[in-house]
Amino acid sequence: MEPSQTTNEQQEEEQLVTPWEVSARDGGKIDYDKLIDRFGCQRIDQSLVQRVERLTSHPAHVFLRRNVFFAHRDFAEVLDAYEKGEKFYLYTGRGPSSEALHLGHLIPFMFTKYLQDAFKVPLVIQLTDDEKFLWKNLTIEECQRLARENAKDIIACGFDISKTFIFNDFDYVGGAFYRNMVQVAKRVTYNQAVGIFGFTGEDHIGKVSFPPVQAVPSFPSSFPHLFKGKENLRCLIPCAIDQDPYFRMTRDVAPRIGYHKPALIESLFFPALQGETGKMSASDPNSAIYVTDSAKDIKNKVNRYAFSGGQDSIEKHRQLGANLEVDIPIKYLSFFLEDDAELEHIKKEYGAGHMLTGEVKQRLVQVLTELVERHRTARANVTEEIVDAFMAVRPLPHMFD
Amino acid sequence: MEPSQTTNEQQEEEQLVTPWEVSARDGGKIDYDKLIDRFGCQRIDQSLVQRVERLTSHPAHVFLRRNVFFAHRDFAEVLDAYEKGEKFYLYTGRGPSSEALHLGHLIPFMFTKYLQDAFKVPLVIQLTDDEKFLWKNLTIEECQRLARENAKDIIACGFDISKTFIFNDFDYVGGAFYRNMVQVAKRVTYNQAVGIFGFTGEDHIGKVSFPPVQAVPSFPSSFPHLFKGKENLRCLIPCAIDQDPYFRMTRDVAPRIGYHKPALIESLFFPALQGETGKMSASDPNSAIYVTDSAKDIKNKVNRYAFSGGQDSIEKHRQLGANLEVDIPIKYLSFFLEDDAELEHIKKEYGAGHMLTGEVKQRLVQVLTELVERHRTARANVTEEIVDAFMAVRPLPHMFD
Repeated sequence: MEPSQTTNEQQEEEQLVTPWEVSARDGGKIDYDKLIDRFGCQRIDQSLVQRVERLTSHPAHVFLRRNVFFAHRDFAEVLDAYEKGEKFYLYTGRGPSSEALHLGHLIPFMFTKYLQDAFKVPLVIQLTDDEKFLWKNLTIEECQRLARENAKDIIACGFDISKTFIFNDFDYVGGAFYRNMVQVAKRVTYNQAVGIFGFTGEDHIGKVSFPPVQAVPSFPSSFPHLFKGKENLRCLIPCAIDQDPYFRMTRDVAPRIGYHKPALIESLFFPALQGETGKMSASDPNSAIYVTDSAKDIKNKVNRYAFSGGQDSIEKHRQLGANLEVDIPIKYLSFFLEDDAELEHIKKEYGAGHMLTGEVKQRLVQVLTELVERHRTARANVTEEIVDAFMAVRPLPHMFD
Repeated sequence: MEPSQTTNEQQEEEQLVTPWEVSARDGGKIDYDKLIDRFGCQRIDQSLVQRVERLTSHPAHVFLRRNVFFAHRDFAEVLDAYEKGEKFYLYTGRGPSSEALHLGHLIPFMFTKYLQDAFKVPLVIQLTDDEKFLWKNLTIEECQRLARENAKDIIACGFDISKTFIFNDFDYVGGAFYRNMVQVAKRVTYNQAVGIFGFTGEDHIGKVSFPPVQAVPSFPSSFPHLFKGKENLRCLIPCAIDQDPYFRMTRDVAPRIGYHKPALIESLFFPALQGETGKMSASDPNSAIYVTDSAKDIKNKVNRYAFSGGQDSIEKHRQLGANLEVDIPIKYLSFFLEDDAELEHIKKEYGAGHMLTGEVKQRLVQVLTELVERHRTARANVTEEIVDAFMAVRPLPHMFD
């Protein structure tokens, strides 16, 4: 096993980060430095970002240059291999438990689209409808339907159909994929699974059985229609850092069954409107901006709920300036306002008290409305036939072009 | 949960009966009465046997009239429904861990063939190559190969191709079958699985994940190519009683996901040549007669290894007679000598000391040689094309004719 994964992580630290729950200590902020130490991954530094720009001849994505994707495992090794002409494939996914995605859900997909374009590599996207059935009170049919609905939002992010395969587990598990699941399951003890995921004896065995399902898309042989004869292809996984436990487990098993360890590039959590104490809550629609929100919804949510680092009175604000560290409009702008100069300008002016919260929120509403409008238009163009085409089990002859 | 399955059965009794290990207490005989009590199943009595004969207009199979199949769950309910014109399907299986089957392996298949012929019902046969990969030190490819080899021996038992679907898990798991696996897994806690199967924390999660795989052939919806629109069909499982834990678990879950509990008809273990202390040992080729044994092998094994209840000297034997309770030739004849009158005659003469062990063994060698020869000839006629045909995922339009 890789560092720090053999003890029950839920118990040893006050902040809790598992694939199913993220909560900071005493309602504070997630301590990402501690998380990196505990998980045993590496920080992404500026030289790595520059190397990506050099190798791809593309400017680094805003999420990369602003450290939204802040941690990695073996990303440098993938770049070494790429530099020598060796390709890789991308793997990301989503657990389809809700009808509409919020902005936090879009982040890995927006970033993965950039990686696909920059590196010109194939991509597999797993929709874990089985996971959602196992963890939530939903029927199988409902989970399958949500997988398909979510696929539309994912496709709307602009993936290249000639390089992208989307699948849902309830329909795709079987054959080579199942054989790899069993290979992985044979090499993880129950005690190890408890250490990594915090299962208890009262959890059902479906939960215990699931981690191999999320593990095996890391192995090219799970997709014989794509990678037959390319079993040695490397895999790079862009994801939020709460998914790291799955891939620590996967990386431990991979070399023992003849595969490369998958490399990871991992993001921060996108904060809730109410402040940065964890991931957004699916049960509170006012904690997030959804891709289905109207311009009016967005304006209303930002103005009413986005936690402000500004001061209580205009006088005090002019005097002290805003606390940018806790200010959600600034956080959100740092994710979605692409213009570096404008962002710096806003931070400077707002931090000095020259700009008011209302002005910053107004700019954020503009940025988000534009983003959501663009997404909505793109999604409206995703027909059932296009979904079928992305999800067809088919070869991708031009996936490395 | 049904009676007696919530505590760890490995620990509470001196005799151990799990799907992976069978051993009597202190090298004695398996106490089947105790087993029936502990498992909570029912004895098959003579009136049930007569009812089967009446309903099928077939004489009861020797395994039924001699109580080789001695226990059941809900078999009477299946007969009630059958009497009212409601059909059912049969499900049995094998874990393909060895090249050649021994006589004990043939017993469920010989009996299942009789049931198929007598009731005129469809049959699914599961080859759990995934189980064998998980429990043994074999590659996936080897387990798949053994599944196919074993399928030839199974087909040689004479199953009707128009009513029989044979599948191996590594190739068939997926789709509706996988969805049912997840349905079952969601409804069994780890603690329950430990109680039923005796897993420990050091066991790999593949073992914990496997029971749903053996459970779901009990549900018609796992075979949409056969039973679409017949999701309410009952299932009857002929098997050795060591498989009971899987189906206790299955019967607990079935009504909670909308299916009938599968009914069971369960056999004794076929004793080793050396005596009746458990199942035969795969690691000792002299403990069993294999379907690949030559006439000379059979003669040699029976004469040298079959435990005799005869007395030490001819004089003493003539005086006291044989102890039929421990005599393996008599046991084997009671499985395979179909002529009731001849069997009674041998038991009487041998028990009275009029027949010697050598004479009984000679008759057994004849019976077994004939059986094995017949099997060998039948197996030689099973071509790869016939295996493909039995294992093809296809509808069976005449399965109830």
